[in-house]
Amino acid sequence: MKPHRKSWESLAAGKRAATLAKVPDHWRLSDSELSDAKKQRDLTGSFIRKFLTEDEIFITDQNATQIASAIQVGWLTALQVTEAFCKRAAIAHQINNCLHEIFFDQAVERAKQLDDYFSQHNKTCGPLHGVPVSLKDQFHVKGIDTTMGYVGWIGSNLGVKTPEQSHKVESQITTELLDLGAVLYCKTSLPQTLLFGETKNNIIGETLNPLNQNLSCGGSSGGEGALQALGGSILGVGTDIGGSVRIPAAFNGIFSIKPTPERISYREVANTNPGQNTYRSTVGFLSTSLDGLELIFRSVLSTEPWKRDPAVIPMPFRDQVVDDLLSRAKPNGAAKASALPLKLGVLWSDGQVGPHPPVKRGLGMVVDAMKEAGHKACYFRVLPSFTLCFWLLRTSADQAKRVHVAFLKADGAHDIHAQLDRSGEPLIPDLRNSFQLKPPIGLLEYQNFTLQGLDYEAQYSDYWNSTSAEDGQIVDAVIMPVAPHAAVIPGKFYHTDYTEAMNLLNYSVVVIPVTRADKDVDLVDESYQPLNATDKKNWDAYDPEAYHGGPVGVQIVGHKYEEEKVWAIAKVVTAALQTFGRQC
Amino acid sequence: MKPHRKSWESLAAGKRAATLAKVPDHWRLSDSELSDAKKQRDLTGSFIRKFLTEDEIFITDQNATQIASAIQVGWLTALQVTEAFCKRAAIAHQINNCLHEIFFDQAVERAKQLDDYFSQHNKTCGPLHGVPVSLKDQFHVKGIDTTMGYVGWIGSNLGVKTPEQSHKVESQITTELLDLGAVLYCKTSLPQTLLFGETKNNIIGETLNPLNQNLSCGGSSGGEGALQALGGSILGVGTDIGGSVRIPAAFNGIFSIKPTPERISYREVANTNPGQNTYRSTVGFLSTSLDGLELIFRSVLSTEPWKRDPAVIPMPFRDQVVDDLLSRAKPNGAAKASALPLKLGVLWSDGQVGPHPPVKRGLGMVVDAMKEAGHKACYFRVLPSFTLCFWLLRTSADQAKRVHVAFLKADGAHDIHAQLDRSGEPLIPDLRNSFQLKPPIGLLEYQNFTLQGLDYEAQYSDYWNSTSAEDGQIVDAVIMPVAPHAAVIPGKFYHTDYTEAMNLLNYSVVVIPVTRADKDVDLVDESYQPLNATDKKNWDAYDPEAYHGGPVGVQIVGHKYEEEKVWAIAKVVTAALQTFGRQC
Repeated sequence: MKPHRKSWESLAAGKRAATLAKVPDHWRLSDSELSDAKKQRDLTGSFIRKFLTEDEIFITDQNATQIASAIQVGWLTALQVTEAFCKRAAIAHQINNCLHEIFFDQAVERAKQLDDYFSQHNKTCGPLHGVPVSLKDQFHVKGIDTTMGYVGWIGSNLGVKTPEQSHKVESQITTELLDLGAVLYCKTSLPQTLLFGETKNNIIGETLNPLNQNLSCGGSSGGEGALQALGGSILGVGTDIGGSVRIPAAFNGIFSIKPTPERISYREVANTNPGQNTYRSTVGFLSTSLDGLELIFRSVLSTEPWKRDPAVIPMPFRDQVVDDLLSRAKPNGAAKASALPLKLGVLWSDGQVGPHPPVKRGLGMVVDAMKEAGHKACYFRVLPSFTLCFWLLRTSADQAKRVHVAFLKADGAHDIHAQLDRSGEPLIPDLRNSFQLKPPIGLLEYQNFTLQGLDYEAQYSDYWNSTSAEDGQIVDAVIMPVAPHAAVIPGKFYHTDYTEAMNLLNYSVVVIPVTRADKDVDLVDESYQPLNATDKKNWDAYDPEAYHGGPVGVQIVGHKYEEEKVWAIAKVVTAALQTFGRQC
Repeated sequence: MKPHRKSWESLAAGKRAATLAKVPDHWRLSDSELSDAKKQRDLTGSFIRKFLTEDEIFITDQNATQIASAIQVGWLTALQVTEAFCKRAAIAHQINNCLHEIFFDQAVERAKQLDDYFSQHNKTCGPLHGVPVSLKDQFHVKGIDTTMGYVGWIGSNLGVKTPEQSHKVESQITTELLDLGAVLYCKTSLPQTLLFGETKNNIIGETLNPLNQNLSCGGSSGGEGALQALGGSILGVGTDIGGSVRIPAAFNGIFSIKPTPERISYREVANTNPGQNTYRSTVGFLSTSLDGLELIFRSVLSTEPWKRDPAVIPMPFRDQVVDDLLSRAKPNGAAKASALPLKLGVLWSDGQVGPHPPVKRGLGMVVDAMKEAGHKACYFRVLPSFTLCFWLLRTSADQAKRVHVAFLKADGAHDIHAQLDRSGEPLIPDLRNSFQLKPPIGLLEYQNFTLQGLDYEAQYSDYWNSTSAEDGQIVDAVIMPVAPHAAVIPGKFYHTDYTEAMNLLNYSVVVIPVTRADKDVDLVDESYQPLNATDKKNWDAYDPEAYHGGPVGVQIVGHKYEEEKVWAIAKVVTAALQTFGRQC
């Protein structure tokens, strides 16, 4: 065993060093700068900006649609943009450890080609022309490793080590992004197995939360979230089977969309146990802006991914859905006779583990702002909180979690251990209880879980429809926590049901940032009576000092295939928060 | 064992008698008429018509759209239509044994209500107002048994025997059909387990092919096919996981559409092993006319089934797809500068079991008619047959079959035996080898099969796309056999790959009738060299005399979610056959 064990450790150390070595010398931070970074609570904003020039700050503080427009009208070149983001990502990685792969050289080459194209044709080559896009390290880029955090995959993709196969695979969505004009420049960190709400693996160690280094950046698309919080990316691609684009978005104060699994191609994307196809991981997007989410989602769909990946539903971006929703939400004008206010369900708690004070306050801000906007413009109503909460989740959220986890663990972690065995690396300590190698569950039990999942989905749909009983109007979307805490103290993520239940339902979800934990406001509620042991553990873990500054996001949840609708509702909610949020 | 065994037999006999007893006395055939029927080769056409009045013949010889229109304009009442179809179905059942449930009383009551509505409102209550629709005995109708061919389900639905639950369930599509104005009047026979290409069970025995009583009516929606061939129905609902709406359509000379599984609701429909959700059975339609298929498919989608069943994709009927396709296929006019001919792939044989001479001739008729139409109007081209055939199916059809069957048998027939055990009835002899109770396969093996299925789908999609290499145009649809024989001699259905491979791909398929076996034309080809033992068995089973008059249909296959497109192509092919088919 010993030489084997040594081998994975040295491989991991070599890979770590090789990635860091791809940061150009002139972007390297000094030991004292690195040591200074370690002492910071918050690495974002002014801290990271001090390593950048004014121009670099100006460029990297734009959002994705601003960058796309600036290039389109010729105000910026793709090269200027690429170099600025590469540098900011390089700094981010050095202080936050958020990258698995760096390929700035490829990015610069590509940016030059795009600029040449622009010069020659006097137009961009696609809607993402020159826009930098970061990728979670599950997506294959030609010439680049995909380790997915496994030591055994170093030097290859998908564990393939024969030279003729390795580094030649390209994920379908990678091809689509390149066809749309995007510039790819780095791949972001993730946890071993992908099935963890923090970001730790045996290659890079851990990625912390750049907004509050007491906390985790979340997971599994954690590196994406952290990189974006640091301004090193404005648009990224992740995946989500239990919360993996939503948790990092909420924990890092950015936006994300988790579509229904079949809308975006997962073809040729590395994954954990892809043979478990009953509940599928979905490709999702993270961005520093809501408009960025729409830009990438709409652009990717415009390539008609279903023509190349038969798993994708042939459903183009539906502008009509967005237009209809936004026109419903406009202030009451003379011509709006048929206007229908939005009706939102609010899920304050799942009845299993109550959210910490900052999360509860964040939800309240959304509810109050929406009520306020509704009160003024008469377009918003909010469901009584307990209607959704207690019927749905007190009786069935634990079921949802149990069923969902059954699928993720059904194979007894055989796939995970096959990957670990390639190098002899062990499970990271956090996962040692969850993913011990076990016999797979029996097929009859698996099929019974399938029936439970289908039944849960049908019952939830019936309940949702029943919300029309009171006033004839069915709830448009549900607002709920992403997790019971504002980011999380590493090792204290006890309850992932808020996101996992939505995976069991395959619902469309947009996450928006709402507020940040404030030790002076979000006091410990000494009167809180925990509902059970997990709730008590979570409640006891609330430490206003440690959590201070941790971001709070909320899930805006729609039915399956309602991505456009929930995105538009997110626009309305965000606008309401901007207008009325301060009052809370 | 003995008393138990006696019990199932008497239960089955009782059910058989009870169903027959629901035929009103004045529609009963005499013993000599029944005995005469047994001697016929072909029960359809003039034979069954002689039991009907001129009015009844006139009404029941209309197709579904004609019936809908006739009621809509007031030429016929729903009651006239209902009584005529009930009578024809009653005759059909007595001579052909194609019904599991008869509820003419309910139907007549409903027809009267519909006529009252029409009188009061001077309009129909929906697009299916007064149109009789027959249902395969998997669909629940309130007050009526769903036995699905199981003795243990007699007197109940889904084996539920507590009086408070039984007969209260209604399948979602049943509700939709009623909301659309349809009149439901009978449920049709199917084979024990549903997983069989003939129609036999321990309750009703066997349903033969009414066009040629030497042959089987096919399965599993076999009673639907037979009833429609006899004119006792013009529109029916079936299901398909291996060919179960396509085989009966082809074997009985009618039309069918097998949509992608998620387009029509399967909610609250009885099924075999519903926990196997990786490859799903799909609700499909059978009709005596192509227009009937469009009428019911469009009507059901107009109810937005996805709002009540979260498993359904929110995809309305897409008129634009039909319009675009039909406009491409129109004769070359002055204004058709952008016209694009249809390009059809033809799969003459799957390289495993070659089709009998009648089927080969039927395919040839389609190809020749399309070429002829194309030649004259320059809108049709046909792919060289061997391109699709040998690449795709010689190398991979056996894989498709193997993988698909793996899913159907994965549970070791546990679900089937649980149903058999309710009454102690045995498997029917035809299924004793296939569905012995066995241990389920392991989950890892199951997940490995899942990966093989996904890979097959992806490879097939790539191949389909590669058909553009020659001329820049991708094949629009593939024409292929439904089975290697024109209906089938009972017990000689050795090879179901032609339909099953399309289930593994979840493709959209329309089946159209083309010709009937002709002993004077479809001679045995003595020079044929069988490819393998199964091919030899199938070839040896070809008997021109026995098969004479057996119907030949073809599959018209499109990608997933291309129902509207394949339906429109079927229109074009049918028109070409009508115009040019005689020449072949």
